[in-house]
Amino acid sequence: MAGQKTEIAVALVHHPVLNRLGETTATAITSTDVHDFARSCAFFDVAPVYLVHPAAGMHALVNDMTRYWLEGAGAKRNPGRREALKQIRMVNTLEDALADADYSLWYTSANAPADETRTVETLRQEHGPHLIVFGTGWGLDASRLPEPNGWLSPITGTGKVRHLSVRAALAIYLDRLRC
Amino acid sequence: MAGQKTEIAVALVHHPVLNRLGETTATAITSTDVHDFARSCAFFDVAPVYLVHPAAGMHALVNDMTRYWLEGAGAKRNPGRREALKQIRMVNTLEDALADADYSLWYTSANAPADETRTVETLRQEHGPHLIVFGTGWGLDASRLPEPNGWLSPITGTGKVRHLSVRAALAIYLDRLRC
Repeated sequence: MAGQKTEIAVALVHHPVLNRLGETTATAITSTDVHDFARSCAFFDVAPVYLVHPAAGMHALVNDMTRYWLEGAGAKRNPGRREALKQIRMVNTLEDALADADYSLWYTSANAPADETRTVETLRQEHGPHLIVFGTGWGLDASRLPEPNGWLSPITGTGKVRHLSVRAALAIYLDRLRC
Repeated sequence: MAGQKTEIAVALVHHPVLNRLGETTATAITSTDVHDFARSCAFFDVAPVYLVHPAAGMHALVNDMTRYWLEGAGAKRNPGRREALKQIRMVNTLEDALADADYSLWYTSANAPADETRTVETLRQEHGPHLIVFGTGWGLDASRLPEPNGWLSPITGTGKVRHLSVRAALAIYLDRLRC
């Protein structure tokens, strides 16, 4: 890795995001996203991992999902999973995450504004902390989110479909950032 | 991409794989793996995607999972998902996949034999077809699988946990191969 160690955090936004019609919506938090985001971030030494959702019930769901691994028998059985999941931070809004540290804010999208993107690799040269933000559903509703420092270049494929899962996109961005 | 186009296929093995005790086992096919493998492969123009499981009930489960997207209302609603999922091939054994084409066979593991690995990028220079094989559970039970041409270098992290999800590993290998 070139230069000074870059401090990176990640946020996965469940509201405000877009639905297929381009309307503002909220999505449910899924167990797969919680575990894959926690594992990929821990693997590449990225923390914390903010899960953004305004519903208290969703915060409780994540606590239920992760308790076994953080405190229960799972913590003994698989200490690595505990290490990963303990970096999860539940917040109501992205603004709450921004209150944690003096983050530079970077948004991601398969449809990022073309004139304004930069590759994730260029963040290596910039002193952190950086917060890289992913959207669920049909992507971030940027009109209802804080103005970012910029957008990261979309991952471009060579095939017939245009959208990776958000889990795959996270893995690829972190690999490109850390390699 | 350097050189000639490389033909790449992927297999996700659910048997024979290892359990946490190092014993031979079979794992269940999960909906997330089916969709994420299909989407990441279609995104990077990799096909087919073999799902290896010896149980007829698991083949039926995958047919149930995918029918909505292949033939039902989902095929109209999301043609890209149809495009991705139609590359799925259910097979009983890895040998059945090998019977499809004259594949060079490459295994992946977080614990690949250190002396014998090569980076996935080097496959770009070699005429295909290549079959890249991923294991579920605690990884491929190589002692019960065909002798491969070789092992791909594990993805190495910088953090505290040693294992990515198989979905994240697939995404990173394909990105490194295609970039």
